[in-house]
Amino acid sequence: MKTAESHSHAVLSGEDLLKQLNWRYATKKFDPARKIDDATYAVLESALRLSASSYGLQPWKFVVVTDPAVKKELSVAAYSQPQPADCSHLVVICRQAVLDEAYLDHYVQYTAEQRSLPEDKKAAFKGMMAGFINGTPAADKDVWAAKQCYIALGFLLSAAALQGVDACPMEGFDKAAFDRILHLPDKGCHSVVLCPLGYRSGEDHYGDLPKVRFPASETIIRI
Amino acid sequence: MKTAESHSHAVLSGEDLLKQLNWRYATKKFDPARKIDDATYAVLESALRLSASSYGLQPWKFVVVTDPAVKKELSVAAYSQPQPADCSHLVVICRQAVLDEAYLDHYVQYTAEQRSLPEDKKAAFKGMMAGFINGTPAADKDVWAAKQCYIALGFLLSAAALQGVDACPMEGFDKAAFDRILHLPDKGCHSVVLCPLGYRSGEDHYGDLPKVRFPASETIIRI
Repeated sequence: MKTAESHSHAVLSGEDLLKQLNWRYATKKFDPARKIDDATYAVLESALRLSASSYGLQPWKFVVVTDPAVKKELSVAAYSQPQPADCSHLVVICRQAVLDEAYLDHYVQYTAEQRSLPEDKKAAFKGMMAGFINGTPAADKDVWAAKQCYIALGFLLSAAALQGVDACPMEGFDKAAFDRILHLPDKGCHSVVLCPLGYRSGEDHYGDLPKVRFPASETIIRI
Repeated sequence: MKTAESHSHAVLSGEDLLKQLNWRYATKKFDPARKIDDATYAVLESALRLSASSYGLQPWKFVVVTDPAVKKELSVAAYSQPQPADCSHLVVICRQAVLDEAYLDHYVQYTAEQRSLPEDKKAAFKGMMAGFINGTPAADKDVWAAKQCYIALGFLLSAAALQGVDACPMEGFDKAAFDRILHLPDKGCHSVVLCPLGYRSGEDHYGDLPKVRFPASETIIRI
């Protein structure tokens, strides 16, 4: 039976939600002096961890860089764009390097513990995913895992906007250099996409420009 | 100069945000009798359109299916999973079929109009993206566009959770069948991922299970 708690309602008005999504923009220049406080950052990290993923497999790791020297080095490896250096927290969203049966077993075992699954249900749960994990070429699983990382990016950007934190999704960086600087292969992952978090500089005029979205007549098809 | 409006603050508490992200789950069974009202759906569609994308290129289209017969046909093409048929609004997130210089020109022209860009800035804006659009093999651009679609999925799932609407991200469907049933090639797009939206059935016990996320010690690396 469903509990009353499962019937949730909107926790903020649609107007406030859209106001914040309109407020956000890809921040070009962060205020290097302004840091995200620990409580606010903890909320963003929780939102990131709560992201949806296919099968719930969470084929990701999140590398959070606050060390100034490392951020500076990563900024250079992002074709000298300033955001990785100037932001408060640089989140490097990474995909798991290996998605094999051992990874699946770990996930199934952890899920079984969290949900007190009996052995037969545990086997069925594994069986549902085993074909995909064992039957998909590694290169295709890499692309699949990267796509899941982009869901996480969407969750993080939304959460940041709602908490009044600025962000800048970035694909323009040298992945091999990031992997090397952060020793990611040793940590079992590879960089996919960046999300510097912090607060916009008063000098960043991009935040004042009208947001450009194609009209609904071009992007929405109703059937 | 920045206006006061650009200094936004959190519009809801971190506690409420995380409560809703914990409330959401991949809904296995929707209540087929319960429809999303127009005002709420309009908010979700706006959130979807406000999703971030690389360069702001919005390489997507969103096909929203409410026609019962079409939803039923799509349910069969989703390996007979019930969500496409039973949900209120089925959002088929699609990638643009062709990302060529004409698409780029259209985007640049539209942006120039929205932002009153002078000709020299318009040329520079185009130049920033032309190398990518003209120099990337079509298959790689398809993957890139699909990844952007997953950001949009993240925005939509977050927005739905905040508005108390249930959702179920779905990769398990016959893409060729969806494209055929919805005549997507004629509409210049291809299906990438599904997001049925609606309200959970009281019979769906999955919503009562503890959410399974690996502990932060496994997924977060701090540097």
